[in-house]
Amino acid sequence: MIFRQLFDRESSTYTYLIASREGGEALLIDPVLEHTNRYVQLVRELGLQLVLAVDTHIHADHITGLGKLREQTGCISAMGEMTRAECLSTHFADGEKLKLDGVAITAMYTPGHTDDSYSFQLPDRVLTGDTLLIRGTGRTDFQNGDPGAQYDSLFGRLLKLPEETLVYPAHDYNGMNVSTIGEEKSHNPRLQVAGRAAYVELMNGLVLDNPRMMDVAVPANRKCGLANAA
Amino acid sequence: MIFRQLFDRESSTYTYLIASREGGEALLIDPVLEHTNRYVQLVRELGLQLVLAVDTHIHADHITGLGKLREQTGCISAMGEMTRAECLSTHFADGEKLKLDGVAITAMYTPGHTDDSYSFQLPDRVLTGDTLLIRGTGRTDFQNGDPGAQYDSLFGRLLKLPEETLVYPAHDYNGMNVSTIGEEKSHNPRLQVAGRAAYVELMNGLVLDNPRMMDVAVPANRKCGLANAA
Repeated sequence: MIFRQLFDRESSTYTYLIASREGGEALLIDPVLEHTNRYVQLVRELGLQLVLAVDTHIHADHITGLGKLREQTGCISAMGEMTRAECLSTHFADGEKLKLDGVAITAMYTPGHTDDSYSFQLPDRVLTGDTLLIRGTGRTDFQNGDPGAQYDSLFGRLLKLPEETLVYPAHDYNGMNVSTIGEEKSHNPRLQVAGRAAYVELMNGLVLDNPRMMDVAVPANRKCGLANAA
Repeated sequence: MIFRQLFDRESSTYTYLIASREGGEALLIDPVLEHTNRYVQLVRELGLQLVLAVDTHIHADHITGLGKLREQTGCISAMGEMTRAECLSTHFADGEKLKLDGVAITAMYTPGHTDDSYSFQLPDRVLTGDTLLIRGTGRTDFQNGDPGAQYDSLFGRLLKLPEETLVYPAHDYNGMNVSTIGEEKSHNPRLQVAGRAAYVELMNGLVLDNPRMMDVAVPANRKCGLANAA
């Protein structure tokens, strides 16, 4: 499998390029608008065919490359069926397999950071979006965030995956690139809580500035990052 | 195998933590002084025993954590026998295997960026230091850099590894985290040269500012980053 983790320094976003083999079909997860040309070049250099680009959720800290990638490559753009984005080619549902030749990727609905947050499960790893970060979890104080729902997504779903499952988040701010479910269970400070109520209290007690780009990024991302979209 | 790629945003350095399994012996390659506590915490969380810390070469853009790690953990600090650093527990030679339980890592002398540059070969991957970068190569205009020697290290050694070998460099400035030997052969612009003389001309024609930290980092790194060392 080809698995590339690409970093946007500005927003500390990880974008993932996944394909079963050189020359095969490829998927991009959480592409950042400014790097579209870099992604397209890498896809070309690896002889891949970009068939699908998805976002784990509507991001508030950067503008998505979904629309521009669709324009440039003809790929399908998709998000989960709970999204408010109005610009997509198609939607996936919880439990649905993404269509990508040679790679089994299943969408998991893991709301909490936003109400449209999905994770993506592969045989040995899970891409957790902003639901589970390395030694952290995504904030739950805007875009219909819900700490109780996030607790359920974490403890009811993601943390029930096998402990050796590799964790690839949508962001990291501390120079970490991967973790495991077992490691996060033991060492993620946000997960060392007595129960759901304690987690809700912990998250509601956080005092965070809004993302700098939020007022621009959220409306833009509802249009897949295409400024002149209807 | 545990294989963690840790990023220093300031100098765009990748530091690698390698171990065969949780609870086993661990190695750090190219640690950055400022992140020593983070490394030690991660080692502890994974139940690892840090037995060895090495630098691929004397860096000019950041101060090494070799000395501080040795002080904090009792690990051995090592560099290649061609180094001028005067602070090490031991040295390795070209072709020598690093001593790490359960992981086969062989040092390869790959001079050119500096005259003390080594790469590290594992069964499926190679850590290339500043000799081979993703779509680039390390500059050769200071610290006894030598573009002819670098050509020999690249074309005579690294590029002769199997094409599917994963390439993990000591730096990336463009958000890329891994490549392969085959990919670099085909798409690295510095490697599309007619021969040794053309490569030397290409490298000698580069006009680059010195690294901001060079005057501090090089003398500090000769002392393993320990400011008060003899």
